[in-house]
Amino acid sequence: MNLESLNTPAALIDVARMIRNIERMQQRMNALGVRFRPHVKTTKCAQVVKTQIDAGANGITVSTLKEAEQFFACGIHDIVYAVGMAPTKLPQALALRRRGCALKIVADSVACAEAIVAYGREHKEPFEVWIEIDVDGHRSGIAPDEDTLLAVATTLSDGGMRLGGVLAHAGSSYDYDKHEELVRIAEQERCGCVRAAERLRAAGHNCDVVSIGSTPTALAAEHLEGVTEVRAGVYVMFDLVMHNVGVNDTSEIALSVLTTVIGHQKEKGWAIVDAGWMAMSRDRGTQRQKRDYGYGLVCLEDGQVQDGYLMSSANQEHGVISRSGRPDREIERRFPIGTRLRILPNHACATGAQHPVYQALCPDGSVEAWPRFYGW
Amino acid sequence: MNLESLNTPAALIDVARMIRNIERMQQRMNALGVRFRPHVKTTKCAQVVKTQIDAGANGITVSTLKEAEQFFACGIHDIVYAVGMAPTKLPQALALRRRGCALKIVADSVACAEAIVAYGREHKEPFEVWIEIDVDGHRSGIAPDEDTLLAVATTLSDGGMRLGGVLAHAGSSYDYDKHEELVRIAEQERCGCVRAAERLRAAGHNCDVVSIGSTPTALAAEHLEGVTEVRAGVYVMFDLVMHNVGVNDTSEIALSVLTTVIGHQKEKGWAIVDAGWMAMSRDRGTQRQKRDYGYGLVCLEDGQVQDGYLMSSANQEHGVISRSGRPDREIERRFPIGTRLRILPNHACATGAQHPVYQALCPDGSVEAWPRFYGW
Repeated sequence: MNLESLNTPAALIDVARMIRNIERMQQRMNALGVRFRPHVKTTKCAQVVKTQIDAGANGITVSTLKEAEQFFACGIHDIVYAVGMAPTKLPQALALRRRGCALKIVADSVACAEAIVAYGREHKEPFEVWIEIDVDGHRSGIAPDEDTLLAVATTLSDGGMRLGGVLAHAGSSYDYDKHEELVRIAEQERCGCVRAAERLRAAGHNCDVVSIGSTPTALAAEHLEGVTEVRAGVYVMFDLVMHNVGVNDTSEIALSVLTTVIGHQKEKGWAIVDAGWMAMSRDRGTQRQKRDYGYGLVCLEDGQVQDGYLMSSANQEHGVISRSGRPDREIERRFPIGTRLRILPNHACATGAQHPVYQALCPDGSVEAWPRFYGW
Repeated sequence: MNLESLNTPAALIDVARMIRNIERMQQRMNALGVRFRPHVKTTKCAQVVKTQIDAGANGITVSTLKEAEQFFACGIHDIVYAVGMAPTKLPQALALRRRGCALKIVADSVACAEAIVAYGREHKEPFEVWIEIDVDGHRSGIAPDEDTLLAVATTLSDGGMRLGGVLAHAGSSYDYDKHEELVRIAEQERCGCVRAAERLRAAGHNCDVVSIGSTPTALAAEHLEGVTEVRAGVYVMFDLVMHNVGVNDTSEIALSVLTTVIGHQKEKGWAIVDAGWMAMSRDRGTQRQKRDYGYGLVCLEDGQVQDGYLMSSANQEHGVISRSGRPDREIERRFPIGTRLRILPNHACATGAQHPVYQALCPDGSVEAWPRFYGW
């Protein structure tokens, strides 16, 4: 297979770019003296994750127990499920551990810790639990100085579970676009998570792991004293949201959607393509950022960016390509019917999720089908 | 299986509601004296489509050739692929026709018609082509009075293809929320499509089929003189976007996402659930409508609407449930950890697409797994 033989729409990975993105992050983590645990929710793809592990990653982060099951079946044992544990999912977690998976689960409340203890005791399983720390108020977790932190730790320890560490995710880093701001939020993430670990240790608890991370903070952090590992996901592909945040150039975005022009509305300056929101996802992450890319930025089939041309709107299987600002009434000549374009996505995690398979475009011009899975 | 035994997140179909939605639309089409051709892109699910056919539908509409292949394998022959034909997809269309599928394809330009003619002649296949008509300027198609209409028809007829009819889709109907406006846009859709058919016939062309439709216009049209068939998709589930348009009550929405409470941020009045945008989709279709439902409207596990409680934000596998307006600082007591909720979606087509399987909750309380497919 090669690029020309692909049907559209297709989720295309530029393998050379992907490898550079993986190396860049791994080298940075090595320089900062921490282990790196990629978040595989971005791609859910064995070939991508193998490349990350081969480059030096230690274990993986997952967002669903299905991801844990699939990657455990690929031979990866060291897995943290970084979403607060629902009590009803404990049997699934137990089954994984019984098969030899070093699965770590997460709690951020006494109620959750109690449910883990009750189930763990019933089944004589000392679950390894990490406590989620809230460093920026953006979602889940316990603030580093809250009393609840020690109450959760005590519940787990007294209940015979293994308290493995603390983890935090500075998701609010996506809201910034200046390097100094990212440095500040990275330091806030580090500092809050280390503070929580210190409080636990001072109270006599074990806390071996101090795990933080998001793509922007991982790339902006100036030092990671007290941190043992970093997690990040989207860096493997990058995207337009991360470009607006300021951590990658558009020429580093490894994922695009290959599409074909199927029509025009000349007066409006529209070209219609066969990739709509089903292929791009409904993610409009750049809408509130400094530059709104609609549903994506247009490139030629060879990857050359067509500055100012966006997928400005999308229906399920139709995308509208137009020039921002003044309509291009010559668009029919610029992109005739049958023209193939690549669209850079707002959000690589969301766009990938729409496709059963990635088409991996290798440096030698060959294309390999790399399956990805979905569901729960 | 029953509701209690389901893992979360899960895409739940209330089968009794679905059947009522199907009957309502079919009865309306019967009363208007037209054939009905449901758009199966909404569910891509054999069990749902079988129910639509059994209720009286004649053939189906698809948005991808994969849908055509899958439903042809289920025994459905009469299929229109309602997206402008990309020349590179002609071999796939030919293969379907050679296997006995009465596949209809769509063109809205001379360039596309020429590509169909060239390929059809080369393979001695008289493709049946419908010409897409633009009745509201919202996307593709040829305006009813444009010269291009006759040029496309002549290209097809002279080239030995079979001109089967015209089709239009008043997608702009989604932008309205008053019955009189929907009646007006429905009449505009009918009128424009019939006008195009009349022009073709006056020029000596065949034009047997006059196909129109969208869920709002299908339900609002007062008469359909000159129309032979109607297409609609989302009516089978309905959703919050359609509720804002005014065509269904929330108690008629047949699709919801079952989810579990996994945490709280008490001060903010947040409950965190294990359904994020991966389970709901990133569709924020109600954002620009009269009432913004965030990522969805919260119901109890039994389906009872919790007025004012929304999924106000979403990450990949986390959703934030909060009360609109004043935070509910008692939310931890209202929805404790482990509570199961149903979230009504903005857009049933987008939410369904995130799930490999629907869980069909039957009137007797049993649950059946109804697979759906995705990809191209």
